[in-house]
Amino acid sequence: MKPAIQITRTGLVIAERHPAHRLVALIDSALRGVGQVMFQDNTYTGLLFLAGLGVNAPFMALYAFAGALISSAVASLAGAETQPVRQGLFGFNGALVGIALPMFLPMTSPAIWLWLAGGAAASTFVLAFLMRLLAPWNAPALTAPFVFVTWAAILSVHALGHIPAAAPPPPALDMPLWQLLPRGLFNGVAQVFLQENPVTGALFALGLLVNAPAASLAALLGSASGLLIALALQVPAPTLAAGIFGFNGALVAIAVGHTFAPKARGALFFAAAATILTPWVQLALSAALAPVHLPVFTFPFVLTTWVFLLGMPVFFDRSKPPSV
Amino acid sequence: MKPAIQITRTGLVIAERHPAHRLVALIDSALRGVGQVMFQDNTYTGLLFLAGLGVNAPFMALYAFAGALISSAVASLAGAETQPVRQGLFGFNGALVGIALPMFLPMTSPAIWLWLAGGAAASTFVLAFLMRLLAPWNAPALTAPFVFVTWAAILSVHALGHIPAAAPPPPALDMPLWQLLPRGLFNGVAQVFLQENPVTGALFALGLLVNAPAASLAALLGSASGLLIALALQVPAPTLAAGIFGFNGALVAIAVGHTFAPKARGALFFAAAATILTPWVQLALSAALAPVHLPVFTFPFVLTTWVFLLGMPVFFDRSKPPSV
Amino acid sequence: MKPAIQITRTGLVIAERHPAHRLVALIDSALRGVGQVMFQDNTYTGLLFLAGLGVNAPFMALYAFAGALISSAVASLAGAETQPVRQGLFGFNGALVGIALPMFLPMTSPAIWLWLAGGAAASTFVLAFLMRLLAPWNAPALTAPFVFVTWAAILSVHALGHIPAAAPPPPALDMPLWQLLPRGLFNGVAQVFLQENPVTGALFALGLLVNAPAASLAALLGSASGLLIALALQVPAPTLAAGIFGFNGALVAIAVGHTFAPKARGALFFAAAATILTPWVQLALSAALAPVHLPVFTFPFVLTTWVFLLGMPVFFDRSKPPSV
Repeated sequence: MKPAIQITRTGLVIAERHPAHRLVALIDSALRGVGQVMFQDNTYTGLLFLAGLGVNAPFMALYAFAGALISSAVASLAGAETQPVRQGLFGFNGALVGIALPMFLPMTSPAIWLWLAGGAAASTFVLAFLMRLLAPWNAPALTAPFVFVTWAAILSVHALGHIPAAAPPPPALDMPLWQLLPRGLFNGVAQVFLQENPVTGALFALGLLVNAPAASLAALLGSASGLLIALALQVPAPTLAAGIFGFNGALVAIAVGHTFAPKARGALFFAAAATILTPWVQLALSAALAPVHLPVFTFPFVLTTWVFLLGMPVFFDRSKPPSV
Repeated sequence: MKPAIQITRTGLVIAERHPAHRLVALIDSALRGVGQVMFQDNTYTGLLFLAGLGVNAPFMALYAFAGALISSAVASLAGAETQPVRQGLFGFNGALVGIALPMFLPMTSPAIWLWLAGGAAASTFVLAFLMRLLAPWNAPALTAPFVFVTWAAILSVHALGHIPAAAPPPPALDMPLWQLLPRGLFNGVAQVFLQENPVTGALFALGLLVNAPAASLAALLGSASGLLIALALQVPAPTLAAGIFGFNGALVAIAVGHTFAPKARGALFFAAAATILTPWVQLALSAALAPVHLPVFTFPFVLTTWVFLLGMPVFFDRSKPPSV
Repeated sequence: MKPAIQITRTGLVIAERHPAHRLVALIDSALRGVGQVMFQDNTYTGLLFLAGLGVNAPFMALYAFAGALISSAVASLAGAETQPVRQGLFGFNGALVGIALPMFLPMTSPAIWLWLAGGAAASTFVLAFLMRLLAPWNAPALTAPFVFVTWAAILSVHALGHIPAAAPPPPALDMPLWQLLPRGLFNGVAQVFLQENPVTGALFALGLLVNAPAASLAALLGSASGLLIALALQVPAPTLAAGIFGFNGALVAIAVGHTFAPKARGALFFAAAATILTPWVQLALSAALAPVHLPVFTFPFVLTTWVFLLGMPVFFDRSKPPSV
């Protein structure tokens, strides 16, 4: 007889639908959801990502896990298919909402938990909307639900009168380039979860490594690309060191260069073009959002990846009938 | 022999295409168009809505009717199918444009009639565009044509130099909660047509009642939901009493909870989730539009309803093949 | 035997794929790309457009040609189909990017050439994205890739700290109407390529004439329509004379009234409605973009044309099955 719960190389496989087993399945789904923030359907990757968060700020690990748990549970209760929930696909936007809301909203505990739960639940409905909206192009929603829900939450507190004060300029950073570059490289990976801590970034890279070494390499190359382009564009040193120009490049490199890469000659050039354009998309979006005082979050990644994934059939696999 | 004009429970049915009958049909279409502002294909609903407008401001009833008439006539002349025109589907955006332009543009009669006619005509072309744009998802355009045309008209007079002065803060309102709440409840329904008058709101609810009692109930519950959430978020009393947080909730509740409701268990929870999220969408949009000095109008309703209607098949009716 | 290179009424036809012939084909593609800025797949039209640019500013002709060449070459190298590249469809957005970036970015030679090359290359990927995005509606991308890439480039230099100073008001223009109107008329055509020179506009009209006399007439009528509406709206004389309200109308008139015109009775009214609405769309977009300090470029044309082309089947050819 098949056991109710099996431990596999990528996490738990749960056969029975006993209530207690369902709870275990939900927890495993939430951990996979944390891993899916960087496209990995792997419980251990999720645990390593939570370890990376916990090293920097223990509460962040709790928030991320809670967000993934709530958005996955809401999807299940609302009637979504079991398989994508179990793969963590309804968890990763909730995980990011769970991290971002406590950082960007003026509420504190316990009120912030209400906003976090509402935001994570909302991310599930926004994801369902985007899944169907993007279905004609067979394109993934990526982290767009996180971005839209978090923007909406921040804007709504602006409308309620909590206008953000202009952030003070960061203190000057007097650091030689050989220190600044590795710091910016790993912080770039850490900033995928809005963290600034090179050890966190290293643990994230390790989390990728245990599931997909090529994804780990892509993340580091994407972060390096953003960092070096920002350096060439004379972005100030504190911004470089904090990894601000790394995380969108890291995600684009994983998505276009690994997860959704075309199986064809020239795929690497295609991924390189996407990754190289990302810092300009990020700069442009940050200027576009300045009048409404919003951070870009991972929207540069989302937009660049949509542009390249949708355009892909124009250049690759033209023999196949278009999916549209 | 079938009579040329029949009077039915929902309005006139006109069989012949005699020119005089065509004019009667156009007038009946415009009245149904006024009713379709809240999804009711019913001439008497349209008449009760006009009565509600007339009670508050006689000119508003005239503007709404004229807008519905012009946008319906333009659709007919341009070659649209007869049936949707007769159902008022080419009239409701014109009706709202007809009300909004005289309120938000600096022109007075007779110039405002030119803008009203042009705006109502434009709403027909924008509706045709949105009907086709949304066709892959089988989604309705809702009042998006009204919102886009009115925003464009307001922005264009801004560009011509009529920059709006900052609105003075409303005078403080010293009203006990037991007075404020019913006032806000009915004003919330009245604000669907941009009116602030509880009697108007009550006549609108009556207009819904004669065609669909459940829609009337949904409108009141949706208005109440927006009002109570805004109260909990400490929105100032004059805004609450004016029904500013009611009309989008009322429309979402009718659309997601009645007109387009999934025929499935859990439909009520789904509609409740949509209605409850609406005030946050409204707050977020109002902050997003602040730099360009635009009101949100019914766009929070449009956006929330699109999100929930498109996402619906992810949760309901998954056995059916997707329409996309 | 068929010759390797044939000279035809619309340009070169190149049969062989010898490397030297490929270079000739690329140059011919780039010239057709310059012509496609106003929808003409014609090498001589492209040459006349370059002549028009050269008359006003020799460097502009070089920039436009280089942009068309680079975006076409990138499309070829990336694997796009040969036929659309040869028709100049991957060139016209690059041509406009090539003109706009040197005008709107603070860099000078040689750095501006790097931005121009990157921008032209990016326009190819954005075009591929839009081609697939718009495929369900069988709608053309028009000059949207140029607009999006140029906006992104301008915004990115804003983000890097090059905030644009407010443009000084243009000097008052004391010119009788009989001088101002023809000047504005031809400048309106010249502004399609961002030029202000009536001789340039006349050469552009000639370039249209050699391929499609009706397109030339449409361009002049569209420019005239925008000019007269702006005059009626009391737009200041220097703006009228510079052709600022002509170029979007000219492009809409060519697109909706000629290139993509419905083959049906009423087509002229349809094109007239689109052309007449264009100045309001332009005014609205200019006010919407004011907080981010961006010019509208040809986006009023793109938006108006999308609205009318997508909506077309609602009014024309309803017997045919919808393409969606």
